[in-house]
Amino acid sequence: MSKYQQIKQTAYEANMQLPKLGLVLFTFGNVSLADHKEQVFAIKPSGVPYELLTPDDMVIVDFDGNTVEGKMRPSSDTKTHAVLYKHWPKIGSVVHTHSTYATAWAQAQRDVPIFGTTHADHLTVDVPCAPPMSDEMIKGNYEYETGFQILNCFKERGLSYEEVEMILVGNHAPFTWGKDAHKAVYNAAVLEEVSRMAYLTETINPQAPRLKDALIRKHFERKHGPDSYYGQ
Amino acid sequence: MSKYQQIKQTAYEANMQLPKLGLVLFTFGNVSLADHKEQVFAIKPSGVPYELLTPDDMVIVDFDGNTVEGKMRPSSDTKTHAVLYKHWPKIGSVVHTHSTYATAWAQAQRDVPIFGTTHADHLTVDVPCAPPMSDEMIKGNYEYETGFQILNCFKERGLSYEEVEMILVGNHAPFTWGKDAHKAVYNAAVLEEVSRMAYLTETINPQAPRLKDALIRKHFERKHGPDSYYGQ
Amino acid sequence: MSKYQQIKQTAYEANMQLPKLGLVLFTFGNVSLADHKEQVFAIKPSGVPYELLTPDDMVIVDFDGNTVEGKMRPSSDTKTHAVLYKHWPKIGSVVHTHSTYATAWAQAQRDVPIFGTTHADHLTVDVPCAPPMSDEMIKGNYEYETGFQILNCFKERGLSYEEVEMILVGNHAPFTWGKDAHKAVYNAAVLEEVSRMAYLTETINPQAPRLKDALIRKHFERKHGPDSYYGQ
Amino acid sequence: MSKYQQIKQTAYEANMQLPKLGLVLFTFGNVSLADHKEQVFAIKPSGVPYELLTPDDMVIVDFDGNTVEGKMRPSSDTKTHAVLYKHWPKIGSVVHTHSTYATAWAQAQRDVPIFGTTHADHLTVDVPCAPPMSDEMIKGNYEYETGFQILNCFKERGLSYEEVEMILVGNHAPFTWGKDAHKAVYNAAVLEEVSRMAYLTETINPQAPRLKDALIRKHFERKHGPDSYYGQ
Repeated sequence: MSKYQQIKQTAYEANMQLPKLGLVLFTFGNVSLADHKEQVFAIKPSGVPYELLTPDDMVIVDFDGNTVEGKMRPSSDTKTHAVLYKHWPKIGSVVHTHSTYATAWAQAQRDVPIFGTTHADHLTVDVPCAPPMSDEMIKGNYEYETGFQILNCFKERGLSYEEVEMILVGNHAPFTWGKDAHKAVYNAAVLEEVSRMAYLTETINPQAPRLKDALIRKHFERKHGPDSYYGQ
Repeated sequence: MSKYQQIKQTAYEANMQLPKLGLVLFTFGNVSLADHKEQVFAIKPSGVPYELLTPDDMVIVDFDGNTVEGKMRPSSDTKTHAVLYKHWPKIGSVVHTHSTYATAWAQAQRDVPIFGTTHADHLTVDVPCAPPMSDEMIKGNYEYETGFQILNCFKERGLSYEEVEMILVGNHAPFTWGKDAHKAVYNAAVLEEVSRMAYLTETINPQAPRLKDALIRKHFERKHGPDSYYGQ
Repeated sequence: MSKYQQIKQTAYEANMQLPKLGLVLFTFGNVSLADHKEQVFAIKPSGVPYELLTPDDMVIVDFDGNTVEGKMRPSSDTKTHAVLYKHWPKIGSVVHTHSTYATAWAQAQRDVPIFGTTHADHLTVDVPCAPPMSDEMIKGNYEYETGFQILNCFKERGLSYEEVEMILVGNHAPFTWGKDAHKAVYNAAVLEEVSRMAYLTETINPQAPRLKDALIRKHFERKHGPDSYYGQ
Repeated sequence: MSKYQQIKQTAYEANMQLPKLGLVLFTFGNVSLADHKEQVFAIKPSGVPYELLTPDDMVIVDFDGNTVEGKMRPSSDTKTHAVLYKHWPKIGSVVHTHSTYATAWAQAQRDVPIFGTTHADHLTVDVPCAPPMSDEMIKGNYEYETGFQILNCFKERGLSYEEVEMILVGNHAPFTWGKDAHKAVYNAAVLEEVSRMAYLTETINPQAPRLKDALIRKHFERKHGPDSYYGQ
């Protein structure tokens, strides 16, 4: 039995959540789960339909993107996951989907504005949309550079990856993460719903104002303050 | 066995209706059910996924928001429910969701216009959207003040809570209520559908007129007049 | 056993199709089925949830709207059905829903434009939207007058009820019909889909042209001409 | 047993995928599967509901549109399929649907713009929308001419049918194809999702730019280059 059996099993189960939550069509998504002690992560193999997937199909990859164990090729997005694990040590899991509304905002190259408490219960800034990559990055090691595009966007905006657990990559689609696979998948579903609500909000009122500061602070403290108590 | 077993069981069943009706993602919603004789209500515990919920998990809370019975913390929206029960004695049940279209109208800070008979069969005014709270209310006892924001909106507009069983809280999401849990949950689903229809109506015809007075009166009388007969 | 057992059973089954096709929320719809020899029709009782409905609950009503057999009150829309059966002798079944997109067009008080072959395969004109009724009609025998509003709209526009089997009643919702219950329910689902496609088409291209005459004629002949052959 | 049993069985299974993927209402779609050695294809019979369909109902038709085997009339779109098989020898399967978003773009008479990598993973140009046919073509052998309208559009634009496996026919609906039935059905679902994302993208940002050239080239090479590796 593989010494990575545990993370393969959990990564498998998390991947199977994506179609159940309506976040993927066919194979358009993947979940990975890290073991930071071993400096590896388990990720979905490339192009395998969810209904045929098994825990043993999960591929074990190191934080430089090299396959450590597994018969199949890892997801084509593997290097993006690897870059995030290598540079953000407190991330336990990464999720990539092409969920419909989040992807539409990414294609529109716009941040998702913070319009309400559904959004503020999870993050207290707009969901960042990283600009499309430079031609040099694209021509080079594309998926690897996608990881750096994400890191750079957080650096430039002064965002904390522990505070903001989601991003849109312009022209592409969303990535989310979290301390474990459950949280990362949860964030992917929340991002899709928040994206959908923001879409509808702007149609109903093109001048809809962002959430006021007092509400943003309240929701931040409800979750993170010394007396945090959030949970519906 | 708890002396509140009956309302715990019914509150549990009503909470389980929310995901079935597509009104909640994860734990974004809660139903409570009051026993006005005992001056308490049963409400969903905080942050428990619907698939793990049991009747015994329901928390019993008094009308000031103090827990009377229960091992878990009640929903973080509990104080809002408490304020409504305390001031509106004929309410038997309160429902809070973040259902997609109703929340979008709340985020857009607009009343849902009365455009047709689907709306008029349930209430004969626009669905009110209470403005976002003042900074003082937000910094204070937030969920408690949310209840007062709702009461104040009804007072200022001269609305009857027995006639209009739903409201949007600006930047936040909808609350509905009714004589029993069945009616309060029913109202939550009706509000979502009416919000969706109004969204589509305005897109199809930005100059769509509100329902004419004669139709509003007719629908009001069909439901409430001496010879009421409504039911499809 | 009732002499109307057959139409009660078939009307029951047709009513049960509405929630399966996603055309009704709660009890917002009804199907009736006529027996023209007996000059009666079977219709859903008022306000009974679909999951509790049985064939025996169907109410038998004559073409003037009087109940002939049945323990429950017939649907509040019964008189509208009665008027249509009385004046349009070749209709075998009538369906009323508040399906989301069709109702949005009715609330927007606009005909659904004929934009493509999906529409033309079923009718070769815009789906008519009857204007809201006059205040006199509304104050009078409301549901009965709704039937006349439909008849008048067809008369004024020179439409044939055998050719065009659907209408929107302004501010209200759609009615469809057909030679039998299967066709009337089918038309209700087609109308909802055509309404949704037209909504999307106008958003994608506000100047989208109506279907050209040659295509309209072709589709009319494909279905009705001497060598009709349509069926996908 | 029919010598075409194999393609009848596979064509049947592929047709049954359409309702499962949410791509058809009632009978609004059809899949065919070719046997190029025998110069025939199996296609769904006309007007049969999916729930009643059996493998034996599939009709065998030659590349001129003549029925070779089968008790029922083939789909009314059969001649369009025949033209494509006759002129595009490497196509193994053709799918026609009236899926909602793709049909809305066809009705709007617009190409679906390439806005992101979800699109670019499948084709690196806008999804072409063939103009509505001339009145002469419509009055003549309509379904046969629909095939030529598709061929002409590809010829005029210099597109390769092996590279671009989908088209919208203006005012009508989409056609997709592929080397086998699995790929052709897959393409029909991808087209619907890409159409939906493009719809949302333009609403969020009416000035959303097309995908930049470097990204288009990258995605083309990822799939087709000497070192192709795509698969999520």
